Amino acid sequence: MPQFKEDLSAGLKAGMRRLAASVCVISLRDTQGERHVMTATAVTSLSDNPPALLVCVNKGATAYDALQNRQPFCVSILHQSQQDISALCAGLTDSDDRFSQGTWQDNDSIPYLGDAQANFFCKTDNVVEYGSHIIAIGKLTEVYTADGEVEPLLYADGKYGQLPN
Amino acid sequence: MPQFKEDLSAGLKAGMRRLAASVCVISLRDTQGERHVMTATAVTSLSDNPPALLVCVNKGATAYDALQNRQPFCVSILHQSQQDISALCAGLTDSDDRFSQGTWQDNDSIPYLGDAQANFFCKTDNVVEYGSHIIAIGKLTEVYTADGEVEPLLYADGKYGQLPN
Repeated sequence: MPQFKEDLSAGLKAGMRRLAASVCVISLRDTQGERHVMTATAVTSLSDNPPALLVCVNKGATAYDALQNRQPFCVSILHQSQQDISALCAGLTDSDDRFSQGTWQDNDSIPYLGDAQANFFCKTDNVVEYGSHIIAIGKLTEVYTADGEVEPLLYADGKYGQLPN
Repeated sequence: MPQFKEDLSAGLKAGMRRLAASVCVISLRDTQGERHVMTATAVTSLSDNPPALLVCVNKGATAYDALQNRQPFCVSILHQSQQDISALCAGLTDSDDRFSQGTWQDNDSIPYLGDAQANFFCKTDNVVEYGSHIIAIGKLTEVYTADGEVEPLLYADGKYGQLPN
């Protein structure tokens, strides 16, 4: 069993390859009105009362400034067919080009992916800095969910996947 | 497409059924030395530098007091065969009985599940309260990972699952 005590950065990476997660995108406008979107797997439900979630975002990420400025945002759970959107929004393509794939719409000026598994619209209630990242706490303002089967896009061990049929 | 604006608690539940997550257990000792363990799916990687993760825990949970007291803890990613441990540690069984299944061991007095997919040993660096829950930020002190295939236990749509073979 591999053990890590000195190189904890390597330990975090090796261990987290075994934590399968659903792939989400975080989308919002900055204070100038420009749209941003980024892929994220560090998304969890946080609180029932008030209903809220959290996202962890690298301080170097495209959406960081707008989140830090507490702009309202949307977290969309990708469908298993949306691997191309995940790759595009995790890649080097910046700002508006990232919106070139997928059914993007606006809800109260917040861009969101119409055919995602779920869209959580959030107002930033708190931003906590820690090391290389921030935790943005989003208090829900509106939620859209898909009809039909539960079919999120998964990511584990450096690869995309899906739930078995 | 179902939309939720008034009943956001229902929206959170409905949307989060579509966020497949890996099932983890959080284990630790309280200040009296008594062991506690609880099932959690709200676990994410947080920071590369310093290497850290976070867990969200309900204020009513069995491990809450010990986490609030910043006791060191372990987050273990369950293997797909460990559904019984997940159920036991999420159920009504309290304290030591929850350790009746699985290969529990101690590392520097922190109880951990020897045959999990990964064990992240953490020192609590910060606790952030929000609504019904706390976010415990754990700075890594040691990591053990399993050998072999990546086979975490998944939870989505109210059911257990696993990655396709």
